[in-house]
Amino acid sequence: MATVSTAKSLIYTHYSVYSSSKTSLGHHQEQIVFFASGKKSKSGKANTNPWLITCSAGDQQTVVIGLAADSGCGKSTFMRRLTSVFGGAAKPPRGGNPDSNTLISDTTTVICLDDYHSLDRTGRKQKGVTALDPRANDFDLMYEQVKALKNGIAVEKPIYNHVTGLLDPPELIKPPKILVIEGLHPMYDSRVRDLLDFSIYLDISDEVKFAWKIQRDMAERGHSLESIKASIEARKPDFDAYIDPQKQYADAVMEVLPTRLIPNDNEGKILRVRLIMKEGIENFNPVYLFDEGSTISWIPCGRKLTCSYPGIRLSCSPQTYFGHEVTVLEMDGQFDKLDELIYVESHLSNISTKYYGEITQQILMHSDFPGSNNGTGLFQTILGLKIRHLYHQIIATTQLSPTQSAKT
Amino acid sequence: MATVSTAKSLIYTHYSVYSSSKTSLGHHQEQIVFFASGKKSKSGKANTNPWLITCSAGDQQTVVIGLAADSGCGKSTFMRRLTSVFGGAAKPPRGGNPDSNTLISDTTTVICLDDYHSLDRTGRKQKGVTALDPRANDFDLMYEQVKALKNGIAVEKPIYNHVTGLLDPPELIKPPKILVIEGLHPMYDSRVRDLLDFSIYLDISDEVKFAWKIQRDMAERGHSLESIKASIEARKPDFDAYIDPQKQYADAVMEVLPTRLIPNDNEGKILRVRLIMKEGIENFNPVYLFDEGSTISWIPCGRKLTCSYPGIRLSCSPQTYFGHEVTVLEMDGQFDKLDELIYVESHLSNISTKYYGEITQQILMHSDFPGSNNGTGLFQTILGLKIRHLYHQIIATTQLSPTQSAKT
Repeated sequence: MATVSTAKSLIYTHYSVYSSSKTSLGHHQEQIVFFASGKKSKSGKANTNPWLITCSAGDQQTVVIGLAADSGCGKSTFMRRLTSVFGGAAKPPRGGNPDSNTLISDTTTVICLDDYHSLDRTGRKQKGVTALDPRANDFDLMYEQVKALKNGIAVEKPIYNHVTGLLDPPELIKPPKILVIEGLHPMYDSRVRDLLDFSIYLDISDEVKFAWKIQRDMAERGHSLESIKASIEARKPDFDAYIDPQKQYADAVMEVLPTRLIPNDNEGKILRVRLIMKEGIENFNPVYLFDEGSTISWIPCGRKLTCSYPGIRLSCSPQTYFGHEVTVLEMDGQFDKLDELIYVESHLSNISTKYYGEITQQILMHSDFPGSNNGTGLFQTILGLKIRHLYHQIIATTQLSPTQSAKT
Repeated sequence: MATVSTAKSLIYTHYSVYSSSKTSLGHHQEQIVFFASGKKSKSGKANTNPWLITCSAGDQQTVVIGLAADSGCGKSTFMRRLTSVFGGAAKPPRGGNPDSNTLISDTTTVICLDDYHSLDRTGRKQKGVTALDPRANDFDLMYEQVKALKNGIAVEKPIYNHVTGLLDPPELIKPPKILVIEGLHPMYDSRVRDLLDFSIYLDISDEVKFAWKIQRDMAERGHSLESIKASIEARKPDFDAYIDPQKQYADAVMEVLPTRLIPNDNEGKILRVRLIMKEGIENFNPVYLFDEGSTISWIPCGRKLTCSYPGIRLSCSPQTYFGHEVTVLEMDGQFDKLDELIYVESHLSNISTKYYGEITQQILMHSDFPGSNNGTGLFQTILGLKIRHLYHQIIATTQLSPTQSAKT
C-alpha cells in the first residue's frame, strides 16, 4: 500500500493514493482507490470519506513532461501551443476552483508545481524564504503524486492560490495521456526527475526577462521600474541556487536572448532564440538545418525571400552543454510575413510534422499568442511536435511490449 | 576578304586569314584558305606559298573561353583540369616549336595571349614598357585571330618564346571545339571580349601571390626575397591599371585569399578561395550551397565528418560585384581525406556533374596538381564542369537552330 504524505506538507497532509496491489509501471490493471480526508489516513481500504473515488486505470501509459521556468516566462503560451498540437484546447478543470492552476485538454493535463508549495505566502514571509527555495516546496508529495499519475492512479492535488497566496482545498487529477508538470522545480528532486519522459527548461536571459517584466508589471500592472528591478534582484540568489542548475538535466533548453542582428540593441523587442537539444535521448531526434551534425548559419532573406530589416538568421551546430552532446538550433529576428515562416519551416529537418507546413499552420492558428512571429513561437511549436512524436513512440513501444515478451 | 594584320604587329605582320566568302557566326560551310607568308599578302587567292592550307571548316561552332590572370597564378593547372573534364590530356602541338605556349587536347586548344606580344623582351626594355602594358601587345591581331578561330577558320599564330624572350615563327592553330585564350588581357580589348562565350578572372590576392612567388622563384629558381618583392612592386602599377580592371567583365572570378580559420595567419599555406559567379549569364547557372539565393555558412566538419585543424568552412551568398548580381561560393581550409571532398561535393547544387562524385573523381585523378586539397582545385574543377555544360548547351542550341528556323 502506497500512502502519499510528507513531513514537509505543513498545511495539507491528507492527499493520499491507495492502490490495492503493487502496480508495475506502464501496466495497471488493478482496482485503484483514491481518497482524500481532512486528516492523515492510515487505512484507505476502510475509508468512507465522501471524496473516495474508485476507478480502473486500465492499460494506459501516462507520459510525463517536465517544463521548468521562472514565472512570467511564457510557460502558459507554451502549454497552449503544446495542447493545440494534439488538436485540443487546454481549459481549467470544469466546475472546480476558479483559481486552479491546472489546464486540461483531451490528451494533456498541465499541473503547476506551485501547487506543491508547502508554505503559503504568509508562511514564506514568516520563515524568510522565497517560493524558489526548496524548503517552501513539498518534493515528497510532488514525487508521490507524479509517480501515481504516471502509474495511472488519480490523485488529489493541492492548489496554491496565486490570487490569495493561500493553499486551497485539493482538486482531483486523473491520469492523462500526457502529464506536463510545469513550474520552478520539475527537475530539482532526482526522484521526480527520474519520472520524466522528457524535460524542457525555458532559459530567459536577464535582459529579456527584465524587458518582459517591465512590459507586464509596469505597463499592465502599474509597478514602478524600481520595484521591478528590486523584485528581480531579490529573486536572483535563490534563482541561481535552485532553479538555474536544473537546466543541466533538461533534454531541451530554450534560451531567449537579445538579438544580435541590431548592434547594441537595447529594446529587447527582437529576440534571438536558441533551442538546445540533447543527443541520444530515446524517442527524440534533434531538429537540424540542411546538414545534420555540421555547423550552419543561414540567412534565408535574399534573392528568393525578401525580409524587412533586420531580417532573420538561423543557425545550427553540434555543441556540448554541461558535458552533453547537443544540437543547437538558433533563430534571430522575426517573421513579417507567412512566406518567411513556411520558407524557414521547409528547410528544417526532423521536425516531426505530419504534413508539409504543419508548423506554419499551428502558428497561424494562434497568431495572437505572444512570440508567434519569432523563435519562441517556432521552437515552442517544434517542441510540441517533438512531444507528440515522443508520446506516440512511447505508446507504440508499450503496446508492443507484451507481445514482444510473449515471443521471447 | 578578311586580312589579319595590324599596325602594332612590329615583328610579324604576315599572319593572315582568308575566307572565300563572308561567314555567318556558327555555320561555316565555305572553303577556307589559310596562308602565311614572309611579307604582308594582299591577295590570298593567288597565293602559292608552301604554307598555304585549305580545309573545310564544316558546321562547327568554336566556343571561346577567356581566362585572365597574372603569370604564375595557376593558369596551367586550371587548363589541365579543364581538359581533363573533357576526357583528354592537353599537350603542346606535335612536332612544333618546343617552346610553344599552346596546349591541345581532343576538344580544347589553349592559347597563351603572351603570343600576341608586339614587343619582344628587348623591345619592351627599349621602349620602357612591361608585358602588362597594352602597348606591348597586338590587340588587332588577337581580335582578328580569335574571331577567325571562332568562325571556324585556322590561323597562323605568333609564338612568344618565354625562354629567349623573342618572337618565334608562327604555328598553325586549327579551330577547336573549345578555344581557351589565357593570359594577361583576354578581356582588355572590347572586340576580343565580345567574342568570349565565357570569361574567367583568377584574382590572386597580393599576400598569396607573394607567398607563391617566394615558393616558386626563391625555392625553385634561387631568386632572393628582395628581388621577388621588387619584381612584384615593379609590376603593380601596370597590373592595377591594365589587368585588374578586367575582372569587372568576367562571368566568373576566382579569388584566392589567406585563410581566416587561423587568426593572423601569415604562412599563406591554407587558402580561402571565393568563386564569384555572375547571375543571368546564358548557359551558366551559379553553383550554390543548400538554398539558392540565401546566405549560408557551413562548417561540414562536425559530428558526421571529422576534419583536422583548422577544418573547412564553406559559405555561399548573393552579393553584388561591380554592379552585377553574383553568387559567391567560398571555401576556406583544405581537405585531408577523400571523405571530406565527397561530403562537400554532395552538398553543392548546380555543379553540372554527369554522375555522383564526378568532382571528387576528377580531383583524385590529378591529386598531384597544385591545389587539389583546397578551394582552388575544387573551384577549377567546378568551372571545368560548368564550361563543359556551357559547351554542350551552345552546341545543342546551334544544332537546333536551323530546324527551329525551318519550323517557324
